[in-house]
Amino acid sequence: MKRTKINRLLEAEAPQDQVLVKGWVRTRRASKGFSFLELNDGSCLKSIQIIADKSLENYGEIERITTGSALSVTGALVESPAKGQAFEIQASEVAILSLAPEDYPLQKKRHSDEFLRSIAHLRPRTNKYGACFRIRSELSFAIHKFYREKGFKYLNTPVITGSDCEGAGEMFRVTSLDPDLVSKQGRMDFTRDFFGQEANLTVSGQLSAEMFALALGDVYTFGPTFRAENSNTARHCAEFWMLEPEMAFCDLEENMDHGEELLKYLIGHITEHCSQDLELFTKFVDKNLAGVLDTLKTSLYSRITYHEAVEILQKSGKEFEYKVENGTDLQSEHERFLAEEYFKKPVFLTDYPKTIKPFYMRMNDDNETVAAVDLLVPRIGELIGGSQREERLDMLEQRMDQMNLPRESYWWYLDSRRFGTVPHSGFGMGFERLIMLVTGITNIRDVIPFPRTPGSINF
Amino acid sequence: MKRTKINRLLEAEAPQDQVLVKGWVRTRRASKGFSFLELNDGSCLKSIQIIADKSLENYGEIERITTGSALSVTGALVESPAKGQAFEIQASEVAILSLAPEDYPLQKKRHSDEFLRSIAHLRPRTNKYGACFRIRSELSFAIHKFYREKGFKYLNTPVITGSDCEGAGEMFRVTSLDPDLVSKQGRMDFTRDFFGQEANLTVSGQLSAEMFALALGDVYTFGPTFRAENSNTARHCAEFWMLEPEMAFCDLEENMDHGEELLKYLIGHITEHCSQDLELFTKFVDKNLAGVLDTLKTSLYSRITYHEAVEILQKSGKEFEYKVENGTDLQSEHERFLAEEYFKKPVFLTDYPKTIKPFYMRMNDDNETVAAVDLLVPRIGELIGGSQREERLDMLEQRMDQMNLPRESYWWYLDSRRFGTVPHSGFGMGFERLIMLVTGITNIRDVIPFPRTPGSINF
Repeated sequence: MKRTKINRLLEAEAPQDQVLVKGWVRTRRASKGFSFLELNDGSCLKSIQIIADKSLENYGEIERITTGSALSVTGALVESPAKGQAFEIQASEVAILSLAPEDYPLQKKRHSDEFLRSIAHLRPRTNKYGACFRIRSELSFAIHKFYREKGFKYLNTPVITGSDCEGAGEMFRVTSLDPDLVSKQGRMDFTRDFFGQEANLTVSGQLSAEMFALALGDVYTFGPTFRAENSNTARHCAEFWMLEPEMAFCDLEENMDHGEELLKYLIGHITEHCSQDLELFTKFVDKNLAGVLDTLKTSLYSRITYHEAVEILQKSGKEFEYKVENGTDLQSEHERFLAEEYFKKPVFLTDYPKTIKPFYMRMNDDNETVAAVDLLVPRIGELIGGSQREERLDMLEQRMDQMNLPRESYWWYLDSRRFGTVPHSGFGMGFERLIMLVTGITNIRDVIPFPRTPGSINF
Repeated sequence: MKRTKINRLLEAEAPQDQVLVKGWVRTRRASKGFSFLELNDGSCLKSIQIIADKSLENYGEIERITTGSALSVTGALVESPAKGQAFEIQASEVAILSLAPEDYPLQKKRHSDEFLRSIAHLRPRTNKYGACFRIRSELSFAIHKFYREKGFKYLNTPVITGSDCEGAGEMFRVTSLDPDLVSKQGRMDFTRDFFGQEANLTVSGQLSAEMFALALGDVYTFGPTFRAENSNTARHCAEFWMLEPEMAFCDLEENMDHGEELLKYLIGHITEHCSQDLELFTKFVDKNLAGVLDTLKTSLYSRITYHEAVEILQKSGKEFEYKVENGTDLQSEHERFLAEEYFKKPVFLTDYPKTIKPFYMRMNDDNETVAAVDLLVPRIGELIGGSQREERLDMLEQRMDQMNLPRESYWWYLDSRRFGTVPHSGFGMGFERLIMLVTGITNIRDVIPFPRTPGSINF
């Protein structure tokens, strides 16, 4: 007999004479010759109730079933008299696959996120983390679906790279040099390393994606990216996933249109497909979650320039930890004030000073600002960072010279401006920030299966 | 006016008075006051023909348009009298976005794969590589679609890891130690490194995925994996993508059923959705491609044991470079012989000697072989490698002790066998090998956007 997953059973249209279900016991309670077992198989938030009575051959064993034990249950799917569940299973056979010992850490009670982080290999078995990782999975799928419907091609840009996209930034080094050899030589001799030169973990697939956008038109990357920043905050991990669309024949306005359309689509998709899991977050994590998601989905996102934003912040009368000054980067507190308190919805900031942005962004006619764009959202701050790219070879070379970037290292990137250059744009969206946004979870460590942070590489 | 992509125009149901199209010129030829421009925008293999006549204001400029130049064209979509194309565009306006200089490397002629590898940033602009990377994108999507339909959850396992899944294997080291500091200290002091210990690039997400399978039921990872093997072959890259499904309540037979269903689905999907691009490979790369794909899609895959395979190979009378001996790993030539010549279709090999397989595979009752499975396919050899996992704590610990693997490093992995352990299985499929299989491309460097191999980290 084929096993049926619990989400299917709970959605069944009618009772069934015989079903086979497998899963893990969340709780067991006994009552005069009956055992009520809540069985969960991870297919959905809800468990199914199994009713085992003492007529079962192994009822003695069933009475010893503990939380976390694994069962294979055959029985009839019947309508449930209990509230909140349409069906339950009258067991005709309960096979115990394994009994969890009494020291199983996930006994029925609430555990702190900190504790659960220390058992990240077990936390997806809890309601909250199960829900979180199902939502993460569904959001990934929604991203691929959105882009395929729009005719974008998915691209895998390299993780190991010889170039540094941002022209700076702290990168991890990748090496196959033997530490013993390094000790003997007293130094790291990269000419003898795997690639014959220094190699790093990518901080962005953008430059590679641009090459493909100028060939296939619309492309996107979606993969792991890395920052070796030694900062222990709730918003930063050393390893995280980033979505980066890159579009040929696309200017800054269209770039914003695209970002707004994307975010609305993703919110729409998960409110449709993850309602049960989202409810958990509304109930236990953020009472306002539904309102936040509705604003993201239905509001018209604001669009202002960096300079206008600075003016709003300076006139706000708000006491910020960091002073707002023209020409400096906005801090998270400023970004959140704009989105949360001032606009009360997502807002695009454009045309940042060139001095605080990378070399590849398109120079505006004022020669002072560039065609950059950040999307700020309530509770998160920056969700999207992008730009129209500098497609004019002479302007790009000039900018690289000013920033002391060696042209020869970027020969292939410059080639794309020599041969068939066209206006093009793109952005990066931190995937974990998106998950935090839609669940209300406030620590990035809790939306990644196994987070990597300074000093922490467990599991 | 909104731009329409060329694949949509070529599939149009009727002529249209005015369309806007943007792309790059593949060729231009002139004939008595007319210019015929083949314009491609990467949305599909085919280009659309633009007819520009001398009545256009800038016809003088149009006559100087070179291969690789970028255009924005407005005009009427009309039925084409030419063979092989339903529609063409009678241009009313041809705006030149950029003119490619005469030294544009992709002039109309066939280029060698070796040459195109040296300009990997431009090769997706060719017919062959455009087709290859569109197929790659569509295969990715098909994988996500297949798994979502089956209720699997997508999981992002960490790229940076402190553990070594295979218990051996050559791994890249990840470090943020300053090489100057290393020189000063004369050694690499990992206690002062980013994670406070040695860190590597993952060779497999399996162990992490098992943790999630034992929580969410059915999961899969699909992401970059790494091998620091200094081998320059047409089948190995230092960085490649791997699909790894992991299924709770699944034995070796069901694991094979799953692999067979997956591969058939993927082949079916791309023959349906990539027919134009696949045709190119049938025409120019492998005349037998359609037959190969049909066999993959419709045949019943064979299933034999490793020992049966060894017997077949030994009795084959075939001269192999490497001798076939019981208890040793099969070589690529052996694997290909079995799939290509003997069975002439995919074949699963099961129950390998424990001595040549990793610690986590389930021990068979003979205590000599393990519940391993490889899928061998024509032209590629091993496409899938997997196993039923050892779910019995005592057996697993015994095996780890025998192989001198420290239990304490795997405490979290062993936990999963302490708490709610169940039979489970999974496998890994090299994504690039799959693309080689369906396109007939024989060098892995040519199915990855920017390949990483020993001594090579360009772009």
